[in-house]
Amino acid sequence: MSCKVVLAQGISASYREELKNTIKTRNIRPKLVGFLANEDPAAAKYAEWTAKTCAETGVEFELRKCSRNDLEDKIIEANLDAGVHGIMVYYPVFGDRQDQYLQNVVDVSKDVEGLHHKYVYNMYHNIRFLDEAKTKKCIIPCTPLGLVKVMEYVGVYNGILPHGNRLHGRVVTIINRSEIVGRPLAALLANDGAKVYSVDINGIQEFHRGVGLQLKKHEVSETTLTVEDVLPLSDVVITGVPSPSYKVPSHLIRDGAVCINFSTYKNFDGDEIKKKAAIYVPAVGKVTVAMLERNLVRLYDYQAQDRASSTA
Amino acid sequence: MSCKVVLAQGISASYREELKNTIKTRNIRPKLVGFLANEDPAAAKYAEWTAKTCAETGVEFELRKCSRNDLEDKIIEANLDAGVHGIMVYYPVFGDRQDQYLQNVVDVSKDVEGLHHKYVYNMYHNIRFLDEAKTKKCIIPCTPLGLVKVMEYVGVYNGILPHGNRLHGRVVTIINRSEIVGRPLAALLANDGAKVYSVDINGIQEFHRGVGLQLKKHEVSETTLTVEDVLPLSDVVITGVPSPSYKVPSHLIRDGAVCINFSTYKNFDGDEIKKKAAIYVPAVGKVTVAMLERNLVRLYDYQAQDRASSTA
Repeated sequence: MSCKVVLAQGISASYREELKNTIKTRNIRPKLVGFLANEDPAAAKYAEWTAKTCAETGVEFELRKCSRNDLEDKIIEANLDAGVHGIMVYYPVFGDRQDQYLQNVVDVSKDVEGLHHKYVYNMYHNIRFLDEAKTKKCIIPCTPLGLVKVMEYVGVYNGILPHGNRLHGRVVTIINRSEIVGRPLAALLANDGAKVYSVDINGIQEFHRGVGLQLKKHEVSETTLTVEDVLPLSDVVITGVPSPSYKVPSHLIRDGAVCINFSTYKNFDGDEIKKKAAIYVPAVGKVTVAMLERNLVRLYDYQAQDRASSTA
Repeated sequence: MSCKVVLAQGISASYREELKNTIKTRNIRPKLVGFLANEDPAAAKYAEWTAKTCAETGVEFELRKCSRNDLEDKIIEANLDAGVHGIMVYYPVFGDRQDQYLQNVVDVSKDVEGLHHKYVYNMYHNIRFLDEAKTKKCIIPCTPLGLVKVMEYVGVYNGILPHGNRLHGRVVTIINRSEIVGRPLAALLANDGAKVYSVDINGIQEFHRGVGLQLKKHEVSETTLTVEDVLPLSDVVITGVPSPSYKVPSHLIRDGAVCINFSTYKNFDGDEIKKKAAIYVPAVGKVTVAMLERNLVRLYDYQAQDRASSTA
């Protein structure tokens, strides 16, 4: 079998190394505060993992536990504290629209997860910088950003094409259209030039900048296509179905496709997919955490930049 | 329009620079002899061009003109001359099977064009070295090799996959099945993992190593497919139709495809193709000549290696 299995560990290694070097060489100590306001054991596990990775790279991580009703005040406190450079919240907290409200309470300048409306809006509109002078890049949500990095690593992005068009000609199916990963990912990839089929239980939407990429940002259109139609057309298949029983039908996968799973469950049948795929990435968690830290260092620098210009 | 037009000049630049440096640093003077035994003005033009490029990179080029009936003797003379490191012939000479006979008269160790049966056989059988110890790579014909380099340059080869599998998942249509370019090219690309549709006036053949690349070398099968079937499936379309009137039907090209022309005529309608292709390479001649010189330096080294071992 010619399938190359690529592990997140290897993909994230260079990012972690770079972070470690940056932090050490510049002798900085960026501080990330994580808020845990639920009893979800998966969230506690993720917090533990964040703490471990941060310790390795030199990021100061502090986990703050509180009740969900205290969370908003605690976030505001951290927003005002100049010693805190990045803020994240382990969702779900309320599990409804109030979570989205909380995402907008986190100050834009400290939002390492890129979930604030300003970032979300800019991402969907393909606006890549916060300022006119283009000195501050927008923060991209960690998991979609991690998936972009995975796709760069495995050669789906074509470096000979200009930035912003490097997926021109690629057809990608994403099975998941959550607000946190699937939908922003579809937008990011379409903005980079891909034709994206975004699949959820209600049907399939197409995200695309049109033939010859004549549009500056992607457009979304409803289709009557089915998974049976789009999988055989797709160079890349990305899945994030949060269910242990779901499996992508291997027989529909295009021969030599790139298959990437970001669900905590194995959405591909490992044995079957290796017979068809050229590249298989079974998990991406480690890359996501590396992106979280990368966003933190970026925000740390923007905050320093702001202080410098306000005292100038 | 988002199409990136890539010129052969740019692709060949790094190869020419490398050749120039190698020849200068190592203070060597590889000698190439070209035989012109026809009255074809295109051949004379090509000879002139070879002379110019060789002068730039430091290769000694000598053009020897003779009648076609003297050619065999002249080749044998050059075979025996230790001062000649590479031999090429401007074909067609007789324009029939006798040309193929002449290709096998050129000594294997001096065949810069890779047209000797030994090289052709090894290429079709995916045998990449001349010797068991794998110190001497087989010579690949210049135009197919140049096209491989073009495809590497424009990002069709995926560097994360192992050598020999870097086209896994790519679908390529080649419109031309000549013995000099189209058929060897189809074999090379299929051996590197691509599924290749090889088109000529008699129909379409598929060259492929099978699902999951389970075969070590490609197999060829006849299909009942048409150009209308295969073009929309193809990530890459390569054409070499020697006719000024032939044009690839642009509306059949897959959005975001890579389009490469090696014919001296423009097989693509430049304006139309730029509206659909992600990458368009209108010509490859300069890369071909760079490969000719690269093959020469390689043969120069093998000859030195042979002399060293025979006197040891």
